[in-house]
Amino acid sequence: MTFEQWTRSVLERVETALENYLPAETTEPAKLHEAMRYAVLGGGKRVRPLLCHAAGELTGARVECLDAAAAALEMIHVYSLVHDDMPCMDDDALRRGKPTVHVKYDEATALLVGDALQSQAFVALTSDVLGAQQQASLVRELALASGSIGMCGGQAIDLASVGHTLTRPQLETMHRMKTGALLRAAVRMGALAGETPDAQALASLDAYAAAVGLAFQVVDDILDVTTDSATLGKTAGKDAKDGKPTYVSIIGLDASRALAAQLRSDAHAALAPFGARAQRLAELADLVVNRVS
Amino acid sequence: MTFEQWTRSVLERVETALENYLPAETTEPAKLHEAMRYAVLGGGKRVRPLLCHAAGELTGARVECLDAAAAALEMIHVYSLVHDDMPCMDDDALRRGKPTVHVKYDEATALLVGDALQSQAFVALTSDVLGAQQQASLVRELALASGSIGMCGGQAIDLASVGHTLTRPQLETMHRMKTGALLRAAVRMGALAGETPDAQALASLDAYAAAVGLAFQVVDDILDVTTDSATLGKTAGKDAKDGKPTYVSIIGLDASRALAAQLRSDAHAALAPFGARAQRLAELADLVVNRVS
Repeated sequence: MTFEQWTRSVLERVETALENYLPAETTEPAKLHEAMRYAVLGGGKRVRPLLCHAAGELTGARVECLDAAAAALEMIHVYSLVHDDMPCMDDDALRRGKPTVHVKYDEATALLVGDALQSQAFVALTSDVLGAQQQASLVRELALASGSIGMCGGQAIDLASVGHTLTRPQLETMHRMKTGALLRAAVRMGALAGETPDAQALASLDAYAAAVGLAFQVVDDILDVTTDSATLGKTAGKDAKDGKPTYVSIIGLDASRALAAQLRSDAHAALAPFGARAQRLAELADLVVNRVS
Repeated sequence: MTFEQWTRSVLERVETALENYLPAETTEPAKLHEAMRYAVLGGGKRVRPLLCHAAGELTGARVECLDAAAAALEMIHVYSLVHDDMPCMDDDALRRGKPTVHVKYDEATALLVGDALQSQAFVALTSDVLGAQQQASLVRELALASGSIGMCGGQAIDLASVGHTLTRPQLETMHRMKTGALLRAAVRMGALAGETPDAQALASLDAYAAAVGLAFQVVDDILDVTTDSATLGKTAGKDAKDGKPTYVSIIGLDASRALAAQLRSDAHAALAPFGARAQRLAELADLVVNRVS
């Protein structure tokens, strides 16, 4: 199977899983469920689900288990986008090429959509396709990665940094929490959905995820200044306009491109212990660095 | 031990558990953690933790397990208050006798405090004082009760009802989701933290929780029109001012008081199968109905 075929088949599975793990649009309150589905379905690069499925290949995880984990990861990611786009945060009107939830509906609905998607992620992780031990360990991974020492904490540092000059280590800390923690959780959860990996394997996966997570952000910063809104599906040039520190603003465009390439090499090197079983993870590192949107 | 002594000892345990299950104020990002602790610690009636501990007595649950469940329940409850108080929702400035989080800090912080408290609740539930099977079942209870078919869904119906006339069944559906689901989860999670209760016991507890949950809301509606803000610790008379349907507005004050008394009897009746072991749950039903704030 080529990487493109593999990606397409995973994306189809993930879309079906999200359809199934989200309440139906006909279930009351219908408007809330419609808005949750509007936010989640039919868009997005699904990077976290892809990482989760790829990591699951290392530990022989059943695809049904990976579907549950991938759906939970994507719900957390989308809830964070819905809340980040609200007027009291980044105040953005465009996401995945569509009006953001508070624009399409209203602010109160956007708040509740995010809140309910977070709960629903934990509902998905306690699906009985997973054993109790796996449910417990996946819930803990996802809750720690999402919360105040992970994604939410990174968002808080990001907000506090607007208009300030960050050092490169400070910028890295922010991104390691804001986007890195959930990307790392995607890789770890995929592996944990199969035969329990040993500590050394988890450490290698952490090193891979750290490199890919940082590369993801560096490329985001590059695309923010080199690509238009239509291609991105979100508002381009927004970081600079909002006075947010980025890799491009701190080290420049050329050094940012060189850094992305270096991080891709680091990601590949971290996968060496796994041999050919890590092919999809290696290809995903390339995808993250070479993407154009 | 008198009920007052029991209540005091549980409240002390719960405060300590919340202290321990929340990240320290010195952990980065410090402002976010300070705001999370501001929202949670040193206030509130802690009804859900009390119900959880009382239900745990029926199944011989260890207090350390009940502490984890109680802390998780209270974090979910407080996150919902923090978000509900935001300008795009109820826009309230006073909660538990203190400025609300978005007033004390800012809206973005309030949004993140709520988001991170929800994650932290699931971190608490995957503490290793609980076995994997218990972690999994408690997470599922809490996630379903918090989400779009529970608390968040009830909040969505509440928002949609402003300025509309609700029938009494519609009002009951709203409250069963908005506050009833989490109160029911408190009782069930307390029981599930011990020896697994059988289906009949869970059904009796559900009947108890349904009566107490509804009584809680009826009494809330009564207090909203009969008590001042200083006693309540939140803005009195707000529902009427906001055009929200309440039991008092639909059936009147006297009928609301009679309904609260009837629901207390229903709660007591549901506990009959448990005999003396359910004493604390019975006393809590009395507390919910007789409270003055």
